[in-house]
Amino acid sequence: MQQLTHKITLRTNGRRLYDITPQVIAWAKESTLKTGLLTLYVQHTSASILINENYDSDVLVDMESFFARLVPDGDKLFIHTSEGPDDMPAHVRSALTQTSISIPFVEGKVALGMWQGIFLYEHRLAPHTRNVLLHLIAE
Amino acid sequence: MQQLTHKITLRTNGRRLYDITPQVIAWAKESTLKTGLLTLYVQHTSASILINENYDSDVLVDMESFFARLVPDGDKLFIHTSEGPDDMPAHVRSALTQTSISIPFVEGKVALGMWQGIFLYEHRLAPHTRNVLLHLIAE
Amino acid sequence: MQQLTHKITLRTNGRRLYDITPQVIAWAKESTLKTGLLTLYVQHTSASILINENYDSDVLVDMESFFARLVPDGDKLFIHTSEGPDDMPAHVRSALTQTSISIPFVEGKVALGMWQGIFLYEHRLAPHTRNVLLHLIAE
Repeated sequence: MQQLTHKITLRTNGRRLYDITPQVIAWAKESTLKTGLLTLYVQHTSASILINENYDSDVLVDMESFFARLVPDGDKLFIHTSEGPDDMPAHVRSALTQTSISIPFVEGKVALGMWQGIFLYEHRLAPHTRNVLLHLIAE
Repeated sequence: MQQLTHKITLRTNGRRLYDITPQVIAWAKESTLKTGLLTLYVQHTSASILINENYDSDVLVDMESFFARLVPDGDKLFIHTSEGPDDMPAHVRSALTQTSISIPFVEGKVALGMWQGIFLYEHRLAPHTRNVLLHLIAE
Repeated sequence: MQQLTHKITLRTNGRRLYDITPQVIAWAKESTLKTGLLTLYVQHTSASILINENYDSDVLVDMESFFARLVPDGDKLFIHTSEGPDDMPAHVRSALTQTSISIPFVEGKVALGMWQGIFLYEHRLAPHTRNVLLHLIAE
């Protein structure tokens, strides 16, 4: 049994879903390992991880429309406003989505379903540098 | 340390929570291993995994009522409508629940709490074939 | 490769986020292991796990305000009311947040981001005893 770790660093340029599937798959493939478990972990509280459809980009637009309506920027409900009207909504969006996801690694491949992609969901409006940690335990 | 993988394939017949606890427990028990980590992963973007109360079935009804109200089918907000009025809501519901869950495996048992069950949450109205991958690393 | 398991038992005194970061970090550090994966799992369906900002406590207040508005106690929608007006909302809140989270363990440390804390989110109003299972696989 072996372990490998990696950090994907992404410079975001606004609130949206960023497809990181190619980087994740390429890194896991390099390992030449066959069976195991891949875990992704985002080191932030205003960005998150989402497995989502990666075929029709309209899905990404609609996902964002939904969250923008559910957790509106500048909501009068919030008292934590010192970091901007999109900051507390970003924390709530992160809570509603995922901070970590674990995907089986089978026959040397990340076992994504046919329509699944792995996305970093940036919830802040301004550009940020985001870290996604990858951990693979496999043989 | 050993690894075991398995695929549970389920034919769903409409939008609701499907209890897969018995299949998961039976498979893990077969292993005769003692200590480890069990991960469940759903290979879809319109079905998800949920740990939920498995005692009173009214909880399952209410859970569905809540999501049906929060993410209404045919919402005018959505532009991705080519696959039907329940498709984009299914992606949103998946984002709001879980794609993977990891449960410690202790003393040869999946360490579920007393009232916890493991459910596949089918978010589409029409029947679908759904795959849940199981990964157990244990000794 | 080694495995360690632990149970954090917490007596809650009402609905709010409880910071369990110090207990988690202290336990993992004790192991003297260097590289691996830490998984937290909550054995309940009316309490959950959340990675959230641990710097400004207003964030915790706002998070609760949001969920209180999104999933109101005593909602007429719900039929599972025998355990009180906050019971079904607690199950929904649990579904919307996380039951398990896995965090890479790197250079002998739980690889939390700078502003991340680990919280048990108690969703019930009355005091409860809550178990969080910890599982570390590392070398």
